[in-house]
Amino acid sequence: MTPQPPVDEEPFTAEQAAVAEANERFYQAVEEGDLDTVRAVWIDGEYADTVHCVHPGQPAVHGRSQVLMSWAVVMSRLSYLQFFITDMRVVVSGDIAVVTCAENVLTDLPRSEGGEGSGLAGGRAEATNIFRRSRDGRWLLFAHHSSPVFPSSSSEPPDEQ
Amino acid sequence: MTPQPPVDEEPFTAEQAAVAEANERFYQAVEEGDLDTVRAVWIDGEYADTVHCVHPGQPAVHGRSQVLMSWAVVMSRLSYLQFFITDMRVVVSGDIAVVTCAENVLTDLPRSEGGEGSGLAGGRAEATNIFRRSRDGRWLLFAHHSSPVFPSSSSEPPDEQ
Repeated sequence: MTPQPPVDEEPFTAEQAAVAEANERFYQAVEEGDLDTVRAVWIDGEYADTVHCVHPGQPAVHGRSQVLMSWAVVMSRLSYLQFFITDMRVVVSGDIAVVTCAENVLTDLPRSEGGEGSGLAGGRAEATNIFRRSRDGRWLLFAHHSSPVFPSSSSEPPDEQ
Repeated sequence: MTPQPPVDEEPFTAEQAAVAEANERFYQAVEEGDLDTVRAVWIDGEYADTVHCVHPGQPAVHGRSQVLMSWAVVMSRLSYLQFFITDMRVVVSGDIAVVTCAENVLTDLPRSEGGEGSGLAGGRAEATNIFRRSRDGRWLLFAHHSSPVFPSSSSEPPDEQ
């Protein structure tokens, strides 16, 4: 992931910075296509059942094992995936941290569509990533929600549908 | 809103039930097109700047006042809007609660497109709603993220783009 300076107007606290690092590790793991690192980013143990993930345009996936499987499929379908994260905001409250950011994505076409080597595609998605602080102080992901921004969308407020 | 029984396998605690009620109030306020009720659902005061909203297919909206304005536009464009909320899960940690649910939406076409009276449209969106417990014990919304589920999407895990 190419890091971008957070645009939050408040100066980041050490706590917010730790969450921002966890957020960066998540995108980096996906970019590298490293399933072990992706596994390590998501919360486990007693919270494994609360794991929740919405990929752009898709129904929600519930539970750590189903969510990890969905990432394995995403990573296996794309030979190139790069995130440019912008507009990051971090809110920490107790043991929960909420990160909102824009995912500016550069990727090749899915392998299954014979797209490898045929060029790159770009797109923008809005993400909400929710982390929980583990007993040893690490911030681990328990919810990721990413949604497409339609190219036609403007700053005009939209329909809720 | 037509309430649906939560599908969370765990029995709901009183705390989860209070959050589920706050979630229901939010959708009910939007359905009724009542801006005063919508205003009362969102957090204010010191947390007003943290308010965050993603409408389906749109870029994020930040800050209480911009978010309320976006809802005013949504409600003014639609003369009929009904949510059937399903697959609701509630996770409470300290003063933060995360609700994930599916929004099954029934609406008329936007007024601006001359759609009033010309029929209804349906769609499904995935939502992540994050609430914060206020000092007086009420659960108030500070982040809403809703994203379209593409009709072609299946249970097959998707691309992250």
